[in-house]
Amino acid sequence: MSTDATDALIAAAKFDANGLVAAIAQQHDTKEVLMLAWMNRESLRETLATGRAVYYSRSRQELWRKGDTSGHTQRVIDLRLDCDGDAVLLLVDQAGAACHTGQRSCFFTAIRDGALASVGLPA
Amino acid sequence: MSTDATDALIAAAKFDANGLVAAIAQQHDTKEVLMLAWMNRESLRETLATGRAVYYSRSRQELWRKGDTSGHTQRVIDLRLDCDGDAVLLLVDQAGAACHTGQRSCFFTAIRDGALASVGLPA
Repeated sequence: MSTDATDALIAAAKFDANGLVAAIAQQHDTKEVLMLAWMNRESLRETLATGRAVYYSRSRQELWRKGDTSGHTQRVIDLRLDCDGDAVLLLVDQAGAACHTGQRSCFFTAIRDGALASVGLPA
Repeated sequence: MSTDATDALIAAAKFDANGLVAAIAQQHDTKEVLMLAWMNRESLRETLATGRAVYYSRSRQELWRKGDTSGHTQRVIDLRLDCDGDAVLLLVDQAGAACHTGQRSCFFTAIRDGALASVGLPA
């Protein structure tokens, strides 16, 4: 990804008071929404430079190169910025589970038959 | 949606310091990611009670019944909570455009040929 285009995208992004934008990861072919995380300028720049999803961990306060520990990396196929610049959508190819629980997607809890239920599938 | 199930979901959600969770809206059949917004307890409760997406507008600091002005309502087919409770995924049936620009999805800006480009489609 060219540096000019990266600079333009980062200039168009509207980072919050903590320097972050929300980042949605979606499996590019099945279109499953996998997870929601956060990115700062540095993680956005590294993601665009390397083609691998890099987030910012708010709990650890550091760059989070997804898959470094788990092997569950995300290859970035495309990256979209939303209309007001405070969220990005990553179209990725997810290796294994996106979720630390081992589920393919983090969004596995729903209401079924009047109670919370797990509707997710393991990776 | 039963009140018990709604209470359980709201109890499982982890609202941030401003009382909000992130909310991703996805078209239920095409799986297109439409927008990212925010919900407080009240908007989550009203969404589950009415089956229509209700967000919380951070700029206007009030409930945002999507479509009240534009007619572009979202009928909620399913609602998922993520593994750490700070984000929800709404599977919706979007009437018209999700985005205030008239685009079907807010995520219409991408990098093409080394520059920012609109890759979205009007609703």
